[in-house]
Amino acid sequence: MSKNTSNPQIAVILGSDSDLATIDTCLKTLDELGLTCELRILSAHRTPRQLTRYVESLQTHGVKVVIAAAGLSAALPGVVAAHTPLPVIGIPVNAGSLGGLDALLSISQMPPGVPVAAMTIGSAGAKNAALLAARIIALGEPSLQERLKDYADAQSNHALQKDRRLRDQSAKGK
Amino acid sequence: MSKNTSNPQIAVILGSDSDLATIDTCLKTLDELGLTCELRILSAHRTPRQLTRYVESLQTHGVKVVIAAAGLSAALPGVVAAHTPLPVIGIPVNAGSLGGLDALLSISQMPPGVPVAAMTIGSAGAKNAALLAARIIALGEPSLQERLKDYADAQSNHALQKDRRLRDQSAKGK
Amino acid sequence: MSKNTSNPQIAVILGSDSDLATIDTCLKTLDELGLTCELRILSAHRTPRQLTRYVESLQTHGVKVVIAAAGLSAALPGVVAAHTPLPVIGIPVNAGSLGGLDALLSISQMPPGVPVAAMTIGSAGAKNAALLAARIIALGEPSLQERLKDYADAQSNHALQKDRRLRDQSAKGK
Amino acid sequence: MSKNTSNPQIAVILGSDSDLATIDTCLKTLDELGLTCELRILSAHRTPRQLTRYVESLQTHGVKVVIAAAGLSAALPGVVAAHTPLPVIGIPVNAGSLGGLDALLSISQMPPGVPVAAMTIGSAGAKNAALLAARIIALGEPSLQERLKDYADAQSNHALQKDRRLRDQSAKGK
Amino acid sequence: MSKNTSNPQIAVILGSDSDLATIDTCLKTLDELGLTCELRILSAHRTPRQLTRYVESLQTHGVKVVIAAAGLSAALPGVVAAHTPLPVIGIPVNAGSLGGLDALLSISQMPPGVPVAAMTIGSAGAKNAALLAARIIALGEPSLQERLKDYADAQSNHALQKDRRLRDQSAKGK
Amino acid sequence: MSKNTSNPQIAVILGSDSDLATIDTCLKTLDELGLTCELRILSAHRTPRQLTRYVESLQTHGVKVVIAAAGLSAALPGVVAAHTPLPVIGIPVNAGSLGGLDALLSISQMPPGVPVAAMTIGSAGAKNAALLAARIIALGEPSLQERLKDYADAQSNHALQKDRRLRDQSAKGK
Amino acid sequence: MSKNTSNPQIAVILGSDSDLATIDTCLKTLDELGLTCELRILSAHRTPRQLTRYVESLQTHGVKVVIAAAGLSAALPGVVAAHTPLPVIGIPVNAGSLGGLDALLSISQMPPGVPVAAMTIGSAGAKNAALLAARIIALGEPSLQERLKDYADAQSNHALQKDRRLRDQSAKGK
Amino acid sequence: MSKNTSNPQIAVILGSDSDLATIDTCLKTLDELGLTCELRILSAHRTPRQLTRYVESLQTHGVKVVIAAAGLSAALPGVVAAHTPLPVIGIPVNAGSLGGLDALLSISQMPPGVPVAAMTIGSAGAKNAALLAARIIALGEPSLQERLKDYADAQSNHALQKDRRLRDQSAKGK
Repeated sequence: MSKNTSNPQIAVILGSDSDLATIDTCLKTLDELGLTCELRILSAHRTPRQLTRYVESLQTHGVKVVIAAAGLSAALPGVVAAHTPLPVIGIPVNAGSLGGLDALLSISQMPPGVPVAAMTIGSAGAKNAALLAARIIALGEPSLQERLKDYADAQSNHALQKDRRLRDQSAKGK
Repeated sequence: MSKNTSNPQIAVILGSDSDLATIDTCLKTLDELGLTCELRILSAHRTPRQLTRYVESLQTHGVKVVIAAAGLSAALPGVVAAHTPLPVIGIPVNAGSLGGLDALLSISQMPPGVPVAAMTIGSAGAKNAALLAARIIALGEPSLQERLKDYADAQSNHALQKDRRLRDQSAKGK
Repeated sequence: MSKNTSNPQIAVILGSDSDLATIDTCLKTLDELGLTCELRILSAHRTPRQLTRYVESLQTHGVKVVIAAAGLSAALPGVVAAHTPLPVIGIPVNAGSLGGLDALLSISQMPPGVPVAAMTIGSAGAKNAALLAARIIALGEPSLQERLKDYADAQSNHALQKDRRLRDQSAKGK
Repeated sequence: MSKNTSNPQIAVILGSDSDLATIDTCLKTLDELGLTCELRILSAHRTPRQLTRYVESLQTHGVKVVIAAAGLSAALPGVVAAHTPLPVIGIPVNAGSLGGLDALLSISQMPPGVPVAAMTIGSAGAKNAALLAARIIALGEPSLQERLKDYADAQSNHALQKDRRLRDQSAKGK
Repeated sequence: MSKNTSNPQIAVILGSDSDLATIDTCLKTLDELGLTCELRILSAHRTPRQLTRYVESLQTHGVKVVIAAAGLSAALPGVVAAHTPLPVIGIPVNAGSLGGLDALLSISQMPPGVPVAAMTIGSAGAKNAALLAARIIALGEPSLQERLKDYADAQSNHALQKDRRLRDQSAKGK
Repeated sequence: MSKNTSNPQIAVILGSDSDLATIDTCLKTLDELGLTCELRILSAHRTPRQLTRYVESLQTHGVKVVIAAAGLSAALPGVVAAHTPLPVIGIPVNAGSLGGLDALLSISQMPPGVPVAAMTIGSAGAKNAALLAARIIALGEPSLQERLKDYADAQSNHALQKDRRLRDQSAKGK
Repeated sequence: MSKNTSNPQIAVILGSDSDLATIDTCLKTLDELGLTCELRILSAHRTPRQLTRYVESLQTHGVKVVIAAAGLSAALPGVVAAHTPLPVIGIPVNAGSLGGLDALLSISQMPPGVPVAAMTIGSAGAKNAALLAARIIALGEPSLQERLKDYADAQSNHALQKDRRLRDQSAKGK
Repeated sequence: MSKNTSNPQIAVILGSDSDLATIDTCLKTLDELGLTCELRILSAHRTPRQLTRYVESLQTHGVKVVIAAAGLSAALPGVVAAHTPLPVIGIPVNAGSLGGLDALLSISQMPPGVPVAAMTIGSAGAKNAALLAARIIALGEPSLQERLKDYADAQSNHALQKDRRLRDQSAKGK
């Protein structure tokens, strides 16, 4: 699903390979929007050196936005944001027994000075991370703006179709 | 403090004028980074029509990022994101008796399809909103990237100075 | 189950078709009480324009009460209440990993000025939404008041029957 | 402020006289909208008999909506709803050390069968309770509908004025 | 399992028959301790009159302790305590999507003046309710004190046996 | 205020002398009901040996009920209940920054086998602890039952008086 | 899996045998690091005397660190820390319906004077308890320091391997 | 108060100088126990490089235990633990509007592999951090074990004195 290219626009970093299922809709949505990404598993706690080195190299490789997903005490997005001036989006993963509230607070409650964009817990947040990354990149890429508009229209039409089908059903049901 | 210009880069929208104190560090930080912004008070609940009209006009006026602050059931950032393809940053304001947890969940737990970048509750989040907006705009503006780097260095030096002073004090204290 | 009529008394709006299962007891209870309703899927975030237009037309079509169900950052009921002077009842749907606490806070913690009647999370709330709508409409419709009284009596008798059966069982068990 | 008349449209019941400060905006808003109310202090726990007797008499005295405010384990609104077929609105009071979360859950999480309309914790909820009561009563009273519309317009204008003043200030500040 | 006798020492009241599974260990433990109880399903919300009448008659029938179990906005134990001077024990049932936190707060956060003894959420609390009732009744019944002591010894021995078995296993495992 | 006698009916144990302010209404209420108590400061963590010895001696000195108050990780009531077959009432003290939720969960969520009666957090719970102790002791002391009835009547009358005064005020205000 | 030896370095105490599944990764990790431990089931509530006696004997038997796991109102680690000057590590077990938040607060929110090292809720915490015990013991045992370093390297390599495999897959996928 | 020496046994790291007030009891307690420490202000987010370098050098300078205090999304203790094999103790600081729950979860909910010993939120935790560090170092330093024993005795005596004074007061009060 994910598209690792030599010059990806987006870096997607997971704290653990157990976060792969959660991130799936993120990769799919990036793909649908024609955005290229590089997917890595690097942990702020288990492989901090490799993480730092990788994050510090991102800007020179043309990456524009970083998406980082982590569960529990999710330090990853904040640590990424500390090592790059790029915009960083954090996806809280529901990995423990608290429904992801721990990850949400760890990601959203960043101290002043190092911003992280916190998303919804779980796969809803994964999809929104892709869309926020697209909105950011689209500021400098008019064609993406078009694709984003199409995406939003399709999404809206999809919702309206469901609405219409429901109304048709009840009309018949009368 | 805030700088309303005819062609602002950033729109800052408050749900209520009681959110002005919280947003203060946001406006200061934007100012320090040389970013122009327009500050508005518009509510998703009390002035929905004016909000929608304003938000839909932003892109054509050259605004690149929207920052929206709201407390309680903070629908504002999500409603803003529903009416513009621009990146939207949400600041949860601690406005009720739950410490801002209501606003944090209302802002971060967006349904899939309409992304909002949730910040820390309160003025820490207000500062980070300015910094995230700057990181986003800097992608297309190398000189801002420089200013952001200087800002981060100053911040880091400020922290190191405090560290040094503390060590000097204890050295004298011996 | 739902009864879409040309002149429904109640509008039931869902933020997403995944909320249909939760709303089921609401539709059933409205049906049992002989109340007509129109069921729509319209989102404050994905189809805001259609939502606004629909909500603003409700009063002229004779709708008296609006019931809105949504999960996560459940902006729907509040946005509905911002566009109609009709009473709005909000049902928090348990749609994420926080047990619906996010939706409950988003719906109940409305800022002053725009009231929403928050119900229990999930299908218990869906049933109560129907009953509250009925209590409201019954103020102007004495026959509904009667039906509501019968409903409450039946409910009470049903509970007392269970109580009696339990006592009979233990009497036999001696 | 409160207007106890012989034929009030609304009954406002407090679980304790310590809830008076919270309820203040409710009484003011009812007054502004020209609605008459009767204010009582009756507790589901300390004066249950008097509460029951009072609530059961409400309908025959022409009361149309009941507003009940209580803190901590706020059983009052639910017990009121169990003894009257009228719509009942519950205001969670922030009376303990949990920010009113206890009262919010006690009021909103009603079991199926006996509906209570939960409002925001504290005085925001008190104001909204008055407005919801007005929306309900306005269904059968066109002139109140007008006053409600005026109230909403005034509220909206008030917000827009603040917005304008802010913009004027920044214009001068340039 | 439950033993409804003409002169029960303990009344066990459930808010709903869906609470029967939770209460099971309560009834079993009462039985093991030779305590008689009467089990009823009566709701503070759906059958308030019958509940009140029953609770007010308890003392004259020789009941000494009341155990009340309820989920969601669990008003039952508090309402029972408001209608009897007997000690009342409340068991929070995990009935919604919040893990029983709503019921725990509704039962434990009683306003001053009407005490309820809150237990653990769920079946652990059901067992403890039986044991607390026994401790209370044992104050006036020395033979029950003996049975309680035996029960505690058996419980302690049971735990120590598990400990011993574990140690034996690891000894063999070496 | 507290009345340490040679043969107290109730033992009140605090985990720390900082809990004295919270316990005040407990001692006053016991005094008003003519109940004797012994007040001790003994900690499950700092003076475990003295606590155990004291608790194990209570029954032989005629103590009938133990009230234990503690904040934070409030192990005290549970440890007391583990060393005596007497009924134990736990008062959660709001001692940290979590509003006493930590103490409430530590006291109410007892594992099965060792019951503790959890009260409201803070001074409301302190008062209720005294009243629950009185209800328990009254089972074997008819004169206390009378005093408890008088106390409840006085409390009820006090509430009704406030209600009357409020109604008089509004009558005059007309 | 567990290795009960005559001179274990670590004592692992469970409040209940239902905690065995949670503790599994703790025992495995201790084993992998070549640390000896003794596993016991002893409860602060059900077998307090045996617990106290055992804990007070630990130091003379050469035990250096105590690991204690418990759920619900998890008093065990605190009570252990009150009876030994050894470092005590507490593992919150997810045993009730609150996701282990009760156990986490009971273990982490210790009053000042008696320290307990709180770990993550559940098996993640169980593994970390073993690693923290190892870090502590390694201070006086250079060879363990080596094994710990190897363990961390293996863990880091394992994570990097997953990262590499992922990159290889996407390379092939192109 | 703090004692920065050339060869400190303990490193105390703060994420921000605003944490100094919280850490005060930690430094005092270390001082009372005759333990030497070095106090630094270094942030995982604002000065990550300096933090990493410092932490990696600790072991070679003879430091045995690291204490790290941080508020909000408190990544500091975890990042410290990722860069040193020494035992790391984390103090959650109450720095935002959530009472420190964010910091507690960020510190306690560490992913498996990198252990952090979480303490109580705030100054109670700061004191316990010092005591846990002392317990750890005492394993290899018998004289500290003696001092710790004296400290615990003094603490226990202090508590007992308060208990005695209270009893004397009530004896006189009779």
